[in-house]
Amino acid sequence: MQKHKYDKSISLFERAQRVIPNGIPGHFNPSNHKPAGTYPFFCDSVKGANFFDIDGNKYIDYMCAYGPMLLGYKDPKVEEAVAIQNKKSDTSTLASPIMVELAEFLVDMIPFADWAYFAKNGADATNMATLIARAATGKRKIIAIEDGYHGSSPWMQNITRTGISPLDHTEVLRIPWNDLQALENTLNENENEVAAFISSPYHHPAFKDSVMPAESYWDNVHKLLRKKGVLSVCDDVRTGFRLNTHGSHEAFGYTPDISCYCKAIANGHPISAVVGTDTLKNAAGSIFQTGSFWFAAAPMAAALATLKQIKDLDIPTQIIRTGEKLFDELTSIARSHGVNLKVTGPRSMPYMRAEHPDGIDFHQTLCGECTQRGAFFLSHHNLFVSAAHGDEELNQTATIFDEAIISTLKKAN
Amino acid sequence: MQKHKYDKSISLFERAQRVIPNGIPGHFNPSNHKPAGTYPFFCDSVKGANFFDIDGNKYIDYMCAYGPMLLGYKDPKVEEAVAIQNKKSDTSTLASPIMVELAEFLVDMIPFADWAYFAKNGADATNMATLIARAATGKRKIIAIEDGYHGSSPWMQNITRTGISPLDHTEVLRIPWNDLQALENTLNENENEVAAFISSPYHHPAFKDSVMPAESYWDNVHKLLRKKGVLSVCDDVRTGFRLNTHGSHEAFGYTPDISCYCKAIANGHPISAVVGTDTLKNAAGSIFQTGSFWFAAAPMAAALATLKQIKDLDIPTQIIRTGEKLFDELTSIARSHGVNLKVTGPRSMPYMRAEHPDGIDFHQTLCGECTQRGAFFLSHHNLFVSAAHGDEELNQTATIFDEAIISTLKKAN
Repeated sequence: MQKHKYDKSISLFERAQRVIPNGIPGHFNPSNHKPAGTYPFFCDSVKGANFFDIDGNKYIDYMCAYGPMLLGYKDPKVEEAVAIQNKKSDTSTLASPIMVELAEFLVDMIPFADWAYFAKNGADATNMATLIARAATGKRKIIAIEDGYHGSSPWMQNITRTGISPLDHTEVLRIPWNDLQALENTLNENENEVAAFISSPYHHPAFKDSVMPAESYWDNVHKLLRKKGVLSVCDDVRTGFRLNTHGSHEAFGYTPDISCYCKAIANGHPISAVVGTDTLKNAAGSIFQTGSFWFAAAPMAAALATLKQIKDLDIPTQIIRTGEKLFDELTSIARSHGVNLKVTGPRSMPYMRAEHPDGIDFHQTLCGECTQRGAFFLSHHNLFVSAAHGDEELNQTATIFDEAIISTLKKAN
Repeated sequence: MQKHKYDKSISLFERAQRVIPNGIPGHFNPSNHKPAGTYPFFCDSVKGANFFDIDGNKYIDYMCAYGPMLLGYKDPKVEEAVAIQNKKSDTSTLASPIMVELAEFLVDMIPFADWAYFAKNGADATNMATLIARAATGKRKIIAIEDGYHGSSPWMQNITRTGISPLDHTEVLRIPWNDLQALENTLNENENEVAAFISSPYHHPAFKDSVMPAESYWDNVHKLLRKKGVLSVCDDVRTGFRLNTHGSHEAFGYTPDISCYCKAIANGHPISAVVGTDTLKNAAGSIFQTGSFWFAAAPMAAALATLKQIKDLDIPTQIIRTGEKLFDELTSIARSHGVNLKVTGPRSMPYMRAEHPDGIDFHQTLCGECTQRGAFFLSHHNLFVSAAHGDEELNQTATIFDEAIISTLKKAN
């Protein structure tokens, strides 16, 4: 019998399906990875910009664990800080001093922030932000962007998903991205009822191109919000530390009242954060939010070691340059084959889409062909660039991309 | 100036208050630790049954990180498993094989369970359980116990808390613990509207004695639930693996449809789990729930190494015996001083309360006196016993308790 590239992945997935609904749940589910059979399912090991699947195949990783990996897998400074903290304590009966150090560092790093809270999931942070906004304003409604992703709590989810009902969305008002008029209308229609407007700093929906804010969009948004006494919550969970060391809002010249971080904040260790202004500190202190491992010290040490490097090395600027270099090159390769590669969003985490009469099928096949050759690209999600992606990885990726697009064009014709 | 026992704690707390609302948030907030000045605020290091505060004071820890510590801090087998997995991968772009191994082990260990899902917080698990129940039944309402704790999501919180509104509780019906008639009435008044009944296996509210299920309570509950087509969700987040290796429901002779685990499942590493029956597997697969670090492999390795020891050494039986020994001794010491020590709940995690005409003040002072002498007891929460609490710790605790009760009685008179 011929050995398939993903034999072990396929066979372990069969085992997984017996004891885990869908085998692999959530956004990691292989049904998201099309065309079927072109993607590995399980990771064996990671290092730098690479991961190895359980069949021994090596990949240059352009998903970076869906965002958490920023400095390269197993960054020595981060892992050393974790090891040092772990020798003392991690989850324990009291908070650890590292929590104070981390809060001080974060408040210093994000200019508008006067305080910080820590949790585990991105959704812990966005949920906390809405609770704080409600406590501060005494109002209940939250305005969010259509297709904006803030986690998987029922109020955040698309209303058509299983188990979600209109009751979960009673206090959530959705408006289109970049639509100032819709924001103004919604604020007028819900006068004195809106606690906060929550949004990522630019629009990065799944399955769609990223869309940057229109000229003066954020300025005008904030004029409206200030006029109406509505708080501005920046969901910087996915974008955080890939656009600007001061928080992604700075890349777009605005200042929110609350920002939410997770993903890259600790280079893969489990921690999220909420930061806010001094005027919201009492409101933040008045709500009750907690979790079993929120005081664990090791992820806080990881966050501190990650943030220090982000600041010292200006990682966002570095990876934006890396992304520009890479995606300019890929665009040029695509053009040389008569294919228009549409790249949207910041180059440190762009959404890439090859335009073709075959539509999404062509792009899916292209990403699958890249992945099979060792450059892991997903077709339906923004990609991620890390500080570990160097010239060697970029050159290899360009070679792979060239071969992949030739193969994809052959299949399309 | 005289050095105070908690000088460093107090001074770091002042720093903390500048950058963190309330200095230390949530249930770790020192305002919970009364009388003021009798408790340390920050942990320096942990080992076995002990932690050391940042002033160098050593404690026998009867909070066990509020539950997560079960085998002793820094259990060698758990930490070794984490180190081995960490050398390969932790948070990465794909799921890891350890997830499948862990699901297989958990499904084998919990007899009614046919599948498992993993997340981070206890509330991730209880939220997922309700979503699955809603998806499976097509119904929306959830019945819960008054004062029952299932996490800090808005629907789980006491309605009087800041930022919470009646709208958060539209679909939550609260009934008293051990009240079969209330359950029957609520089911009748909400015919065909109830998806699930969620409850811990016995009642362990904060600030109150624990209450065990009445004779035949769970039998009768399940007869009612089955008749009405309502699912039974066991919140085993706090109790899990401290009562029975097969899940805490077994200690009370019933079988739920879904169980939620967190806390002790990985001896302090951040992971939670939902398990359920085969008939709910499709419903579980139909919902969307995910988080940034839910596929992290190191906590899964920790959980597997923890569960193996729980099973092999029958940890619940062991720590129940330890707790019986300790709390029998403390009760007897209290009696010798004319004080009735009321101990409720399973002895592996009992709620302890010294009865006195001064009411709660006496018990708070007693717990503070114990803590200052090196046996860390909280007055308002159930305590926790771990497998690292041996005869040496028990004897020391008895000596401390004797001195503490003498001192407390002097202060009371």
